[in-house]
Amino acid sequence: MVIAEITIVPIGTGSPSISRYVAECVRALEDAGIKYTLTPMGTILEGSLEEILEAVRMLHRIPLNKGVERVSTRVVLDERRDKNATAEDKVKSVEKRLKGKE
Amino acid sequence: MVIAEITIVPIGTGSPSISRYVAECVRALEDAGIKYTLTPMGTILEGSLEEILEAVRMLHRIPLNKGVERVSTRVVLDERRDKNATAEDKVKSVEKRLKGKE
Amino acid sequence: MVIAEITIVPIGTGSPSISRYVAECVRALEDAGIKYTLTPMGTILEGSLEEILEAVRMLHRIPLNKGVERVSTRVVLDERRDKNATAEDKVKSVEKRLKGKE
Amino acid sequence: MVIAEITIVPIGTGSPSISRYVAECVRALEDAGIKYTLTPMGTILEGSLEEILEAVRMLHRIPLNKGVERVSTRVVLDERRDKNATAEDKVKSVEKRLKGKE
Repeated sequence: MVIAEITIVPIGTGSPSISRYVAECVRALEDAGIKYTLTPMGTILEGSLEEILEAVRMLHRIPLNKGVERVSTRVVLDERRDKNATAEDKVKSVEKRLKGKE
Repeated sequence: MVIAEITIVPIGTGSPSISRYVAECVRALEDAGIKYTLTPMGTILEGSLEEILEAVRMLHRIPLNKGVERVSTRVVLDERRDKNATAEDKVKSVEKRLKGKE
Repeated sequence: MVIAEITIVPIGTGSPSISRYVAECVRALEDAGIKYTLTPMGTILEGSLEEILEAVRMLHRIPLNKGVERVSTRVVLDERRDKNATAEDKVKSVEKRLKGKE
Repeated sequence: MVIAEITIVPIGTGSPSISRYVAECVRALEDAGIKYTLTPMGTILEGSLEEILEAVRMLHRIPLNKGVERVSTRVVLDERRDKNATAEDKVKSVEKRLKGKE
């Protein structure tokens, strides 16, 4: 399992707002049944490496298919083989440490 | 106001777990009074450009000061001048669009 | 055509050096016939979106297949539909502007 | 010494070209005497952590000061304490390994 973060940045649209493209991406993730969480700086995805790269392909093309002339897409893939941790587990693991020391 | 995401990656520690360094970073942000939110792939910061870059300086050094030999730190800064939106507003703006279309 | 940058960060290896993994990645790119350029902070790839995502899949797995327990892979995809520019063209376009003003 | 990569992405400008902003950034780096190298996906900077963060502050503001309403700036900082390697050394270290095995 891979935990990933993807951020789609449409360039040259004439508007500083990009929420309509992010909303389209969320709809596409819902339709594709991919586990996701929205954050203020990107979208967290969880799945196999193949599922995530297929989602990246799909999401990167959404603004281009809507006529945007240039898209810059950032992706970070985090894969760990020593244990099976979900995105939620990662945050909990830090919170547990914080409580332990306080 | 700038919304930023920072991720600290200690390299060469001998362990795939990095939560102890993230926990140290969270404590430092608490002590410094900087507004933050933990996500599965990084930490969201909010503040002036100067406050955020000072936080980056502080957080990047935490693993190095604990003896880690190499640190790779990713930062994304998002600054918008046409309106004043918080990190929370960014997510809400997408959710509002999603509701509007459904 | 997409221009991309990929950086593979092996975590928990016990050594701050990652050049052996980068060298393996370069060999894999050579074998696969993918156009690439090494930079101090990553590897630039050029190709179709599908070719690049297939390269990402291959490169991300290299350290994992060599026994590294965790890998953090950063990717940035830059696709432009209004003109066909290579990675080299992008740098030349800035250099041309710099000369124009001097 | 820190090796960094910075990429400035102006959003909402109405044009997919960003080379004029990159050229402004290069001029600012020249004026400030900061060691830099242009790549197809960003600009490599070398200096102390303080010098680099000061450069990030300066470069991030360039498009905003020219009237761009939103800027997304990506930064990666790479700092290694076990040896003193320049940006050029990093690439050479990989090339040396490649030659060694061929």
